[in-house]
Amino acid sequence: MAGDVYAYLEARRDQALHDLIEFASIASVSTDPAYQAEMAAAAQWVADRLVQAGMDAVEVIETDGHPAVYAEWLHAPGAPTILVYGHYDVQPPDPLDKWRSDPFAPQVREGRLYGRGVSDDKGPMLIPLLAAQAYMATAGRLPVNVKFLFEGEEEVGSPSLEPLIAAHAARLAADFALSADGAMWRIDDPSVTVSSRGMTGLEFRLRGAAKDLHSGRHGGAVANPLHALAELVAGLHTPDGRVAVAGFYDDVAELSAVERAELAALPFDDAAYLREVGAPALFGEAGYTTAERMWVRPTLEVNGMGGGYQGAGSKTVIPGEAMAKITCRLVPNQRPADIAAKIVRHLEDHTPPGVTLEVMRGGGHDALPYRIPDDHPGLRAAADVLRAVYGREPLKVRMGGTLPVSELFRRLLGIDTVFFSFSTADEDFHAPNEFFRVQRLYDGLRAWAMYWERLAAAG
Amino acid sequence: MAGDVYAYLEARRDQALHDLIEFASIASVSTDPAYQAEMAAAAQWVADRLVQAGMDAVEVIETDGHPAVYAEWLHAPGAPTILVYGHYDVQPPDPLDKWRSDPFAPQVREGRLYGRGVSDDKGPMLIPLLAAQAYMATAGRLPVNVKFLFEGEEEVGSPSLEPLIAAHAARLAADFALSADGAMWRIDDPSVTVSSRGMTGLEFRLRGAAKDLHSGRHGGAVANPLHALAELVAGLHTPDGRVAVAGFYDDVAELSAVERAELAALPFDDAAYLREVGAPALFGEAGYTTAERMWVRPTLEVNGMGGGYQGAGSKTVIPGEAMAKITCRLVPNQRPADIAAKIVRHLEDHTPPGVTLEVMRGGGHDALPYRIPDDHPGLRAAADVLRAVYGREPLKVRMGGTLPVSELFRRLLGIDTVFFSFSTADEDFHAPNEFFRVQRLYDGLRAWAMYWERLAAAG
Repeated sequence: MAGDVYAYLEARRDQALHDLIEFASIASVSTDPAYQAEMAAAAQWVADRLVQAGMDAVEVIETDGHPAVYAEWLHAPGAPTILVYGHYDVQPPDPLDKWRSDPFAPQVREGRLYGRGVSDDKGPMLIPLLAAQAYMATAGRLPVNVKFLFEGEEEVGSPSLEPLIAAHAARLAADFALSADGAMWRIDDPSVTVSSRGMTGLEFRLRGAAKDLHSGRHGGAVANPLHALAELVAGLHTPDGRVAVAGFYDDVAELSAVERAELAALPFDDAAYLREVGAPALFGEAGYTTAERMWVRPTLEVNGMGGGYQGAGSKTVIPGEAMAKITCRLVPNQRPADIAAKIVRHLEDHTPPGVTLEVMRGGGHDALPYRIPDDHPGLRAAADVLRAVYGREPLKVRMGGTLPVSELFRRLLGIDTVFFSFSTADEDFHAPNEFFRVQRLYDGLRAWAMYWERLAAAG
Repeated sequence: MAGDVYAYLEARRDQALHDLIEFASIASVSTDPAYQAEMAAAAQWVADRLVQAGMDAVEVIETDGHPAVYAEWLHAPGAPTILVYGHYDVQPPDPLDKWRSDPFAPQVREGRLYGRGVSDDKGPMLIPLLAAQAYMATAGRLPVNVKFLFEGEEEVGSPSLEPLIAAHAARLAADFALSADGAMWRIDDPSVTVSSRGMTGLEFRLRGAAKDLHSGRHGGAVANPLHALAELVAGLHTPDGRVAVAGFYDDVAELSAVERAELAALPFDDAAYLREVGAPALFGEAGYTTAERMWVRPTLEVNGMGGGYQGAGSKTVIPGEAMAKITCRLVPNQRPADIAAKIVRHLEDHTPPGVTLEVMRGGGHDALPYRIPDDHPGLRAAADVLRAVYGREPLKVRMGGTLPVSELFRRLLGIDTVFFSFSTADEDFHAPNEFFRVQRLYDGLRAWAMYWERLAAAG
């Protein structure tokens, strides 16, 4: 039976690529209300494909935000049940002028498919869907019981996911979750991810004059919110790259000597990484390696800030206000709400004279840091499959990013999450010219088919 | 003869307001190439009106940028010749969502005409044009010789004005310039302006990674250009509001005790000013009064800065770059190029690790500070007319803003510039809901007619 699946997948590679291009042509940008119709269209596209694949109980589940899509196939008695997770929403395409081809008309160039969301997460989430379809088309059944949960709010911090999982806990019950989101570390070495960072965030605004003022007539008389913003933001870090917010590091579990040695043993090449990101130099918290800073140390990053006139030419203005958006990546045992509160206190304590502070703190992005046990059977299966597909031992790596879902699945369903994505961390998601390596689509289809097969055999 | 003029102007008030509304409906935004057609339309509108008024030699003079409009009436032998200056270009209307009515569909509400450019400078520059028309319609002649020069690049630093004046120096020869630009200090007290601040400016960009990076995967590894921007901008001032750029104050001519006493004697009310601008507090260079800081002390203001994601929602990104636009207001004896060079050196010396600096320095905004002699006949005439129109002694005030034209007229034509504008400094030019007091349009028409009459009598 399984042999047929691999032949089927092999024969239909072009169709799989075509499906991904069609899926990624839908501009499902979750953060911007202007894309409401495209979000609905993407959810429906996923549901239609699950029906075509032969899955049962396919449902577009409405939420207070964007809908999730659920499906199941539960006709393998005695075999494990896994909950497949992915997301169909994508980041905004800005800045548009930096794209070499239309972000929503995906284009293959030199073995890479370029388009918004192809790597994060439409390519990776389409893989289990097409693997299921291949099993159904060739064998009429799956080797294990599978439940699919594809959400539409991952890029905005998954605000509806917690109530949704809580409301459908029985329906979502599984032995563990297998996430199609969470990229592999690098293209040359297959890897399994054993931890991810948590997150918290907020936005703030500084207000000076009640309106924009002419910088000639009024310059010198009142505070410029841009100067105040600069002072406040500059004060969030020390010159050596540490976060200057009081208490920020209080709950950080420092790495053991063993953990630091494990990380140091990974083939992480600072020079190669620097070339990859194209920065003039590496920079970050003093006293830690680059890998440590990216994976196991917390950060505070301003994701956007601005005010005044930023267009072409000039406008001699003292703006009435200025804003900044901040997110932090958290590590055990930092708590999102506690860190956010400490940042708010810092901002309040350090707001310069002449401006007022307003903090917008939704909390929708909050996520605890996550770590999976080393001996988890789903993690072992992932390592086995990667060894078989790539012919070498997968690395055990950490993840700098955040997957709130793993924390939710553990807390609400009592299960762990194995990350099994075939995107790669260098594929410019959240940036212009996001791409997905076409070969990874084919690798992923084979690997997911194999994963279910092994799991059934082990089970 | 003059009596007829005043009656004529009085009778045609509605027509004058209608003319201004028509003029201000043309979106002549000089800084943004998208408004190219409107710029040409506005220049032609001015030229047509000058022809209708009966002026001679009307010409739209092309430049490397936006055209200027010239006209003359030189049939008053023995009488002085004055060069009337104004500008028909306006600031961009952003932020559009803060306007209570369409910036380019001017609307009268409670005695104020709201619209972009009505106060800066379309209302004030229309006044001498309509005053000339009134003289021609009633007397068939003007009391003095008049040359009109209306430019279309004032809001972008008048880059074409210097070559234009240099190329037409003989044609523009006059006894002095009378500027319809340069607002009066306040509505309650008529005033003559005796000095204006100079200007210089530049823009800079900090670059980190070659592309926007995911703040989860990469956060901690490379410098965030927004953090670097904040640090660099924060370092441009000391906490007590002084400019921290080395040498910035070296050439500043400190005020004499007499000058400080003169300024202190003006009815400047800090509390009233604070209410007017609506800021939480006044703020600026320690050791100087608010009036001194606005008029006779130099400033360095960031007019716009930003980077990363500033739209709705969030985007967890470490941007590849960040930018800031800076302008300075200068006082005697600071020199624009010298100050700009000192700022560039400061930026170079203080650029934080992990980012690279690029400075864009056009120099197009450079203007020397200006001061007119106290005993200038044109200044005395202005004071006489204001005393007649408003029934009280005009104040002698300074101007925080910059009129590069006064420096150019002195350097290239050897003449001084008298500011005789009927806009008021509180009319929100360069901000949303710019307005012009309708009564000032009528005051201005009477005052300009009277100015020419007095000048002819004095000459």
